[in-house]
Amino acid sequence: MTNKVFITDLVLRDGHQSLIATRMRTEHMLPICAKLDNIGFWSLEAWGGATFDACVRFLKEDPWERLAKLRKALPNTPIQMLLRGQNLLGYRHYADDVVRAFVQKSADNGVDVFRIFDAMNDLRNMQVSIDAVKKSGKMAEGAISYTTSPVHDIPHFVELAKGLANFGCDTIAIKDMAGLLTPSAAFELVTAIRAATGLPVHTHSHATSGLASMTQLKAIEAGSTIIDTCISAFAEGASHPTTESMVAALAGTQYDTGIKLDDLEEIAAYFREIRKIYWQYESKFTGVDPRVLISQVPGGMISNLSNQLKEQGALDRMDEVLAEIPRVREDLGYPPLVTPTSQIVGSQAVINVLTGGRYKTITNEVKLYMQGRYGKAPGKINEAVRDMAISDQEVITCRPADLITDEMDKLRSEIEDVAKSEEDILTYAMFPDLGRTFLQERNAHTLTPETLLPIEAKSSGDCTRFAADEFRVTLH
Amino acid sequence: MTNKVFITDLVLRDGHQSLIATRMRTEHMLPICAKLDNIGFWSLEAWGGATFDACVRFLKEDPWERLAKLRKALPNTPIQMLLRGQNLLGYRHYADDVVRAFVQKSADNGVDVFRIFDAMNDLRNMQVSIDAVKKSGKMAEGAISYTTSPVHDIPHFVELAKGLANFGCDTIAIKDMAGLLTPSAAFELVTAIRAATGLPVHTHSHATSGLASMTQLKAIEAGSTIIDTCISAFAEGASHPTTESMVAALAGTQYDTGIKLDDLEEIAAYFREIRKIYWQYESKFTGVDPRVLISQVPGGMISNLSNQLKEQGALDRMDEVLAEIPRVREDLGYPPLVTPTSQIVGSQAVINVLTGGRYKTITNEVKLYMQGRYGKAPGKINEAVRDMAISDQEVITCRPADLITDEMDKLRSEIEDVAKSEEDILTYAMFPDLGRTFLQERNAHTLTPETLLPIEAKSSGDCTRFAADEFRVTLH
Ligand SMILES: [Co+2]
Ligand SMILES: [Co+2]
Repeated sequence: MTNKVFITDLVLRDGHQSLIATRMRTEHMLPICAKLDNIGFWSLEAWGGATFDACVRFLKEDPWERLAKLRKALPNTPIQMLLRGQNLLGYRHYADDVVRAFVQKSADNGVDVFRIFDAMNDLRNMQVSIDAVKKSGKMAEGAISYTTSPVHDIPHFVELAKGLANFGCDTIAIKDMAGLLTPSAAFELVTAIRAATGLPVHTHSHATSGLASMTQLKAIEAGSTIIDTCISAFAEGASHPTTESMVAALAGTQYDTGIKLDDLEEIAAYFREIRKIYWQYESKFTGVDPRVLISQVPGGMISNLSNQLKEQGALDRMDEVLAEIPRVREDLGYPPLVTPTSQIVGSQAVINVLTGGRYKTITNEVKLYMQGRYGKAPGKINEAVRDMAISDQEVITCRPADLITDEMDKLRSEIEDVAKSEEDILTYAMFPDLGRTFLQERNAHTLTPETLLPIEAKSSGDCTRFAADEFRVTLH
Repeated sequence: MTNKVFITDLVLRDGHQSLIATRMRTEHMLPICAKLDNIGFWSLEAWGGATFDACVRFLKEDPWERLAKLRKALPNTPIQMLLRGQNLLGYRHYADDVVRAFVQKSADNGVDVFRIFDAMNDLRNMQVSIDAVKKSGKMAEGAISYTTSPVHDIPHFVELAKGLANFGCDTIAIKDMAGLLTPSAAFELVTAIRAATGLPVHTHSHATSGLASMTQLKAIEAGSTIIDTCISAFAEGASHPTTESMVAALAGTQYDTGIKLDDLEEIAAYFREIRKIYWQYESKFTGVDPRVLISQVPGGMISNLSNQLKEQGALDRMDEVLAEIPRVREDLGYPPLVTPTSQIVGSQAVINVLTGGRYKTITNEVKLYMQGRYGKAPGKINEAVRDMAISDQEVITCRPADLITDEMDKLRSEIEDVAKSEEDILTYAMFPDLGRTFLQERNAHTLTPETLLPIEAKSSGDCTRFAADEFRVTLH
């Protein structure tokens, strides 16, 4: 019996997003594309919210151009992107016409596989983008954001998977952004989803807690046929299980990937050199950090919190904040902690600790959340907290985007002085201020990417790490 | 059904040996011993060849005193050591009376579990030390050095395990020093050893290649009930799977260890601070390096080779050396690559490449090897190479130590001017020159440990890493 396992390599997106603050430049991707393209990966993940953001904000590259270049350089391998459902690659809900336009343009420029998730696991926030992908003729992968809570049991996740199957998704992804999925839970979950949907299951698990390779192995034994890994040079720690290791682990078994280690090593050797160029974005600690298994607070969130606390001169209150996060999450009905809910919960927890009284101050995001503006919470919302947040303001129960009228025309007219294409309008739609500035500078030929410190600077002289404190860490 | 899994934590020996060149000092172990002692580990590995060597050579600590102190600080947890069979902790075969004395003194000073291996997997080199352990009333763990070659199949390893069981070993260890054991091979191997011996199987696998956690999981499913892990602060990479991660992976399953993550985190937090003190011994790269899966040359050997080649100004010939190693190993009848065979094979491979003709020069160690002085090779020796090495010199087929007459009296008289105890004589026996100097300086109260660079030096000013180039890397 053979049950060949397929691999999605993440080095062009989640790998460098997790380890060097999403800073890898297109010029460092293209030279290795021919070799990547020859491996026979199920897909190469190469596009998403943070790469789009980093292109516009720091690298001064047009993200649409990157996509088109990669498409050309990877003629034989599907390109995969991560899409935040109705949020697309931005931080708010968009009108349906923007969602449709964005998906169509992404497909036109080269995306073959769309992995679609919603931070609330609210299926209504995913339906329009899934429909649009199907209409474009591309592959729709519905992603379940994995988390643990009293309401997140197997039947809960199976219901989500069934809903995604009903939407016509081609595959189901289990998205374990925090590394909380244990091998035994993965076995149970994959078995249940396979039984309920019959769809291929694609497993994405961060290596943060040291569980991911075991988790993927047990997911495979339960019938997951596609796994996300990253070539060794950008693997492990906050990133993902090592591609070569998973290939070696499965070689000669019924799950053999058919991929040759020698071919992977050529790619790994290339990226080992590339990684050195970005030394200034490295974290101090790149190993396994199992603390997430205790606090259930993902590593990326802790980095953000520690920056927030540092700004307030209150780094010593981290323990209180870590204890407050589960309480805020419970009050909010146990949302998974992933962009943007990770920021919503984290910021409110910081405020609850620093202001010396829970919910004495409440963020706008929590107010919107309590109004139902992010969708339906997985569990029950604490009504006392909701009263404090929004008193008698209306709570919506419809899909949030139902209240947003079409906005492409408006966006088009707002940016028509600088936009030269539909893609430009969508860039502006994702990042209004930043996008406008980017387009203006592009038109004026004054785009200037941030400076990379020379490699030599690392070993001679000052070696304080320039970890990207200013960058909002996303969870993905 | 419960099949509780037991854990040996390696932080006091293999963890720091693998990551900071065996430099951890006793003063940094003792403060955390009470907490380590309370976890309920099956054992704590704390003593071995490299720790003994580093104590005498660099730290200027009496290794016997370290053992006695740890024994006192760990009243409830068995202390485990790694012993190279007839080599003990040195680099030659010793007479049986030295083996017996060394084992007895180790037991007297605190060792409860002796893991015994031989680089050739020649059981005759392990029998006397196993007998001595049994006689001391302590636990004897017979270790199989895992490797891959045309002669190393499952029946071969099962024969070894049976032999160890016949010697009266209490447990069988699978010692995967290079990280070559795949999950599926582990499943097969553990199943076969369990069926053939009925003894508990203890799995030791380095995380170098990214396989070890998966390998241990499958070993457990096949019936391995004891696994070697290391607390997160000194885990992964050249070291071992993370203790917390394996505990979390097994929690709630039939293999639940019963260990609490909160308790482990207190220990991890302590060692995270300790590791910073030793920053000068860190390797540049601490992640997964799957290249060993292709070259089959363990990472520690590559470090040694690279130092040897650097000295000769021939670092550019590494690829040729890596290609030559499997050929030399084949000529020598496929010994496992572990101390001392890793050095024997590696040095000859370097010479074969640099002198421009294979075996134009032959090391003394290869000559001794060809005479049978290290024991019986697992496979057939290349007779043409043997002729070149030793022409018509005698080849022994007996156990090498059969030709060594008792030597304790001789050693005693050689060192009686400075030795103050049986332990001192044994220190001298392990390291004649170094040991004598150590004892003399100790008597004169002039022992001076090597200097640790201050932690501040890391982030201010020069940050060239002071990786311990002078230290002979052992494979373990
Ligand atoms: Co991710
Ligand atoms: Co070892």
